[in-house]
Formats: sequence, structure tokens, C-alpha cells
Amino acid sequence: MARVSQEHLDARRRQILDGAARCFAHNGFHATSMQDVLKEVGLSAGAVYRYFAGKDELIEAVVAEVLEVIRGIFEEAAGQTPPPPPDVLVGAGFRDVLGGAAYSVAGEPSFLPRLMVQVWTETLRNDGLSALLREGYARVSTAWIKIVEGYQAAGMMRADIPAEHVARTMIATAQGFAAQLALFGEEVTVEALQDGLRGLMSMTEPR
Amino acid sequence: MARVSQEHLDARRRQILDGAARCFAHNGFHATSMQDVLKEVGLSAGAVYRYFAGKDELIEAVVAEVLEVIRGIFEEAAGQTPPPPPDVLVGAGFRDVLGGAAYSVAGEPSFLPRLMVQVWTETLRNDGLSALLREGYARVSTAWIKIVEGYQAAGMMRADIPAEHVARTMIATAQGFAAQLALFGEEVTVEALQDGLRGLMSMTEPR
Repeated sequence: MARVSQEHLDARRRQILDGAARCFAHNGFHATSMQDVLKEVGLSAGAVYRYFAGKDELIEAVVAEVLEVIRGIFEEAAGQTPPPPPDVLVGAGFRDVLGGAAYSVAGEPSFLPRLMVQVWTETLRNDGLSALLREGYARVSTAWIKIVEGYQAAGMMRADIPAEHVARTMIATAQGFAAQLALFGEEVTVEALQDGLRGLMSMTEPR
Repeated sequence: MARVSQEHLDARRRQILDGAARCFAHNGFHATSMQDVLKEVGLSAGAVYRYFAGKDELIEAVVAEVLEVIRGIFEEAAGQTPPPPPDVLVGAGFRDVLGGAAYSVAGEPSFLPRLMVQVWTETLRNDGLSALLREGYARVSTAWIKIVEGYQAAGMMRADIPAEHVARTMIATAQGFAAQLALFGEEVTVEALQDGLRGLMSMTEPR
């Protein structure tokens, strides 16, 4: 076998993951066969199976990668003093993830939200994926807890509320927004979500 | 055929819907056959097909019913001056829906969240269900817009933010929380969501 560079291996792996994600997003996880993935990426079975043993490994790799990107965004924000407020942070996060080159076709909306919703359903009956998602949630939550503690330390938020609960709520909001993107498409804008968070953040007791 | 009371017809319909929802939640929509539903509810094909022509009608009836319950909860809140704040409202809404007799087995957590996540996935490839979900979203959103306008009229929220955007964000938060219930089970509590909303509502600029 000819020696190949790490760069080549990485590019090939990327090509396979993108093609698989495209198949899963458009046709569903169950309706997609490894043959469909081979056809989509234009590679031989030998070339693909060198990287991934099957569909489960492909979906796990896609999920792990997306969770890592999301964790990275919030981990970086957690390092700032004070962290950017939720509307700024969640807006930037969605623009990063949805605007990224991965999991999109040029000129079309990202198919990542459709993929996420399907992964949740798959998770209900796939223990490996369920464990992966729990672990990913825990990591993103750890980053969000640091952010919330940053708000509380800066006097930006009531300090008597468990940071973990605010973290869970922020992640829920992002998950639900992703579900709306998947279900309703382009009528759903990141600006609306940012406005909504600003509205909530502005609340006070009735006058 | 013997004449039967409306009460009997309603109870029979209820029995079929609950059994079908149980099958869908536990085994997935695709893996559930009409035979499975008949077995679960202990009725003959003739008895079941009198009410529902097939799986698609069953899932649509379940979705329409759940959306109607959710709309009712927020429609009622929209009539109050001022409406209860989001943490109170969302908490009461989830307790109503999750604690209701429908879509639960006594002593077990409601299986409605698992069903919701599966419906979203099914919606990606089922135009009838997609239209139903859009219509349901629009109704729930109309109720939430009235609630937000109530907050704004009472001076509880910045009045320069489109109420529709806050409504979308509140619904997203509830959807994402439902996804977490489906994915992570009992570690997810309504109290945590309420705390998280209170934290967001308490936010101010850094001091």
C-alpha cells in the first residue's frame, strides 16, 4: 500500500463523515445503507471501511465531532470575565455551528438541525449513542456552569440559583431552537432567539 | 350492530390512542405495526379500524390532542392580567402535561417526551404531520404572544422586543426541555427548568 500523508487521511475521513451526515439528514438513519454512503462520497467499500466499521461508527463520529465543536465554543466563553451575556453567546454559537463548512452544502441551510433531531430519536434505542450523548451533555454543561458562575460573580445574575440549573435551561433552549430549525426551516432566525433571550433577561416584577 | 353511547365511543377511542402512543413511545413509530397496536389495546381489527384507518391517522390524532392540551394551558394563562411569569407558567404547564392520565402508565414517568422526539423525526419526512405540527405551533405561539404582550403591558418586560420572538424562545425552551426528559430521564426535573428561567429573568448588566 502506498504511504499516505496524515493530511490525506484527515481529508478522506472528513469527506466520508460529511457524505454520511448528508445521507442521514436527508433520508434518515434507518433508511440509509452503507451502500448509500459509498455512493454519496464516491469511494470504494475498502476505502470507507478503513475508517469506519459501519453505520453506528459513522453516526457516533458525527455526534462526537458536533458535541466537541459546541463544547469548544462555550469553553472559550467560560474563560472570559465576565462572560458574554446569553443572547450574545447563544447567537454567536449558532452562527458558528450553522455557518461552518461541515454539515452543509454551499448555498443551502445547514442540515445539522435535521441530523440532531434524528440522533435524539436514534438515541432512544441505541445505548452506545445514549452514553455518548450523556457524556457530551455533561461536557457542554460543565462549560455552561462556568459561564453562569461568571455571571453570578460579576453580579449579572442572582447568585442563589444553582448554576447547573441555569446551564440545563440554556442548553434546553438551544436544543429546542435546533428542533425548530429542523421542523420549520428558514422562518426560524437566530435573531429571533436572541431577541427572546433579551426579553426574558429584561423581566422584572409587575409594576 | 348494537347502539352504543357516545361515552362508550369516547372511552374506546381513548383506549386505542393510549395504547398506540405507548407502542410508538417504546418501540418507535416505524417498528410499530397496526398488529402491535391491536395486541396492546386488546381489541379486534374491526374495533380499531372503526376509529382510525391506520398508523398515520393514529399518530396524527395523538399529536393533535397533545398540541390542543398545550395550547389550552397557555390560552388560559393569556387571559390573566398580568399573566403568571414564565417560570411559574412553564412549570405548571409541564406538571399538567406530564402528570396527566393520558400517555402515562401509573407509577412510571410519562412517555410523552419520548413520543415528542420521535414525532419530530417523523415530521421530517411526513408532509401531513409537518402541516399539523406547523399549525399546532402557530396556535401555541398565538397564545404565548398574548402572554408576552401581557408582560409588556404590565411593565414586566421590555416593550421594544417583538412578542413573537419571545414566544418562539419560550416554546424552544419547552421543546428542548422535553428532549432532555426523553434523552436523560429522571435526572431532569421541572424545578431545574424553573430555576434556570428565574436565573435568566434576574439578569442585569455587569456591575
